[in-house]
Amino acid sequence: MRIITLTTDFGIRDWFVGTMKGVIHGINSRTTIVDITHDVPPGELNAGAFALVNSYRFFPKRTIHVAVVDPGVGGKRKAIAVQTSNYFFIGPDNGVLSWALGKEKIKGIRSLENERYFLKPISRTFHGRDIFSSVAAHLSCGVRMEKLGPALKEIVQLHWPQPKRMRNGLEGAVVYVDRFGNAITNLDAALIARGKQDKAEIFIGSKRLCVISDSYESVPAGHAVAVLGSTGCLEIAVNGGSAAQQLKLRRGDAVLLHVGIDVRRL
Amino acid sequence: MRIITLTTDFGIRDWFVGTMKGVIHGINSRTTIVDITHDVPPGELNAGAFALVNSYRFFPKRTIHVAVVDPGVGGKRKAIAVQTSNYFFIGPDNGVLSWALGKEKIKGIRSLENERYFLKPISRTFHGRDIFSSVAAHLSCGVRMEKLGPALKEIVQLHWPQPKRMRNGLEGAVVYVDRFGNAITNLDAALIARGKQDKAEIFIGSKRLCVISDSYESVPAGHAVAVLGSTGCLEIAVNGGSAAQQLKLRRGDAVLLHVGIDVRRL
Amino acid sequence: MRIITLTTDFGIRDWFVGTMKGVIHGINSRTTIVDITHDVPPGELNAGAFALVNSYRFFPKRTIHVAVVDPGVGGKRKAIAVQTSNYFFIGPDNGVLSWALGKEKIKGIRSLENERYFLKPISRTFHGRDIFSSVAAHLSCGVRMEKLGPALKEIVQLHWPQPKRMRNGLEGAVVYVDRFGNAITNLDAALIARGKQDKAEIFIGSKRLCVISDSYESVPAGHAVAVLGSTGCLEIAVNGGSAAQQLKLRRGDAVLLHVGIDVRRL
Repeated sequence: MRIITLTTDFGIRDWFVGTMKGVIHGINSRTTIVDITHDVPPGELNAGAFALVNSYRFFPKRTIHVAVVDPGVGGKRKAIAVQTSNYFFIGPDNGVLSWALGKEKIKGIRSLENERYFLKPISRTFHGRDIFSSVAAHLSCGVRMEKLGPALKEIVQLHWPQPKRMRNGLEGAVVYVDRFGNAITNLDAALIARGKQDKAEIFIGSKRLCVISDSYESVPAGHAVAVLGSTGCLEIAVNGGSAAQQLKLRRGDAVLLHVGIDVRRL
Repeated sequence: MRIITLTTDFGIRDWFVGTMKGVIHGINSRTTIVDITHDVPPGELNAGAFALVNSYRFFPKRTIHVAVVDPGVGGKRKAIAVQTSNYFFIGPDNGVLSWALGKEKIKGIRSLENERYFLKPISRTFHGRDIFSSVAAHLSCGVRMEKLGPALKEIVQLHWPQPKRMRNGLEGAVVYVDRFGNAITNLDAALIARGKQDKAEIFIGSKRLCVISDSYESVPAGHAVAVLGSTGCLEIAVNGGSAAQQLKLRRGDAVLLHVGIDVRRL
Repeated sequence: MRIITLTTDFGIRDWFVGTMKGVIHGINSRTTIVDITHDVPPGELNAGAFALVNSYRFFPKRTIHVAVVDPGVGGKRKAIAVQTSNYFFIGPDNGVLSWALGKEKIKGIRSLENERYFLKPISRTFHGRDIFSSVAAHLSCGVRMEKLGPALKEIVQLHWPQPKRMRNGLEGAVVYVDRFGNAITNLDAALIARGKQDKAEIFIGSKRLCVISDSYESVPAGHAVAVLGSTGCLEIAVNGGSAAQQLKLRRGDAVLLHVGIDVRRL
């Protein structure tokens, strides 16, 4: 069965997500729908894009990923479908798809304009139901990309903060705080490997926080630890606690990784 | 595959909803279960009825809708199954089904009394598991309505606040505040169309709030806007913010729609 | 279709659970995944074990139950799969499976060490994705237990508080507070039946709280009531309200059940 995933900021308190699933099953009764998350904070494109980029590649090829964080619904932003070598992506063209697409080989982009594949009447406030779910379901039935609307050459990109190379390491940032209070950074494994990991230390401002360890349990309960997390990036955690609460870490906070060598020429 | 939807106030923190799904799959392994919502506030029939009435019709015909907001579980209220031209509805007879049923053509109502279709032993506190899930699953296997129990002629109705016709428009009310803080009113599209939409204005008490626009983006960020929402009713929103927080709107608050003509004789 | 259930503390805000489902569907496209709950408070083994023990037996035989509350991930704790007469259980060997397994006849225990059934590269922080989901999916495809790793003779047990027999009844405790604020105790039906139920009274400390009733509605709104709940244990509730809030009940609080006879020799 073909899989359609959903990543939204619709929450689970109202009937929005259930309604999207009704629309999909009404068009294709043989699809499996998987929720990535619906608890993206309202309108936070970063959080939606981050959830998608960290999950999409764990699904079987040909999965259709629908991401609807859409504060501009009913306004001027385009609605798009993108085919890559492995997957399909559907959502508003506001950057929410861009981090995942940045890791994929794009085969084609279409502007969703063919109303034949929309649910009517089309509301002005719930394209998740009337456009994105409906188009995803038709795509899962085998409708070809070319039918959906005119080709586009590029999509809106969401800014991804790149770490800066410094004299003795890297200056990165917290890019996401997860449910456990772990502060996920943009310092990825490849960058870290270029330094000397056994000498690597994490600083917040001028304060040395911790070394890099293999697991949360490498430090006593209540102590800070940096581990290479499941996203492939360094994350700052507190064993048995919340790094976000205890260390007052938030998205955007600078995180310094000292690796004992000058990485500016690497 | 036959679809069974679930609308409850069981929350997602405990094992209640998962258990209902286990019961259903144990009786019919070939059904698809879709959550509408489980975050209806405990015992709030209005919120459950509103979630159901706004979502049920987006599902394929013959879908079985189960709604369990059931503060009187184990007491005197009846348990019912209702067949309409398009769907089946199952739940306690306390009004939670009544708004959806008010829009459907009813073909038959049964009081769930045939214990053959219950899970035993029947608890006194969790009919969602022992009665409603079990009966829904048996119905999805083709069990006929007549087998479930004696016929009923009517069901308990939940009060729906009707807008009042006034000299210069309508007096409605906020009937639901959604996860985005949008205040959904009972002023529906048909009523609005009878006035002059371009002159329509929303008042809260004696204070003019906003005009009716096409999308959230029609006003600057942080400003109030009224749009025809995806439920078919007017909703009051704040572009990029929460109308409920910023305007202190709650369920039950009066909302005046001035349409520039006397609608009392329309 | 084979069912895999998931019980975790991963929450639903991030992409963790969706990713686990992607992994499972990538290995076995013909499995049905059911969420028990993902809102176990971070690291609370008791809550995870309680959700599992109260739900697992409502699923069809051969269901694979995956429970991942895993504060020691990446450390020394083992990962296990357990086959019982009726089900399979997969999770960390930290006690989260033990209450459910205590009610089942165990046929075999394996330490998950055969990396052939893991997702690679194996992260140090997300075995829910890389080990538990992957092994569950392979098991659902028919992989035999013996292939997963060496046999174990026993698993880590989580402490279950047994009620104490007293001169005039039982001293139990609140073991779980559910979403409605009902305080579920460890006083089970079998124990209660040995006393005289019609004379049974609940005390908190030296204060008589209520008798045992048949349903929440047996007392006026706002009053305390004890009912035999859907877990098979006594629970303390407030009709139309939250016992946890109103009576300030928490997990671990002592609850005395007076049954009018000396139960010490029963």
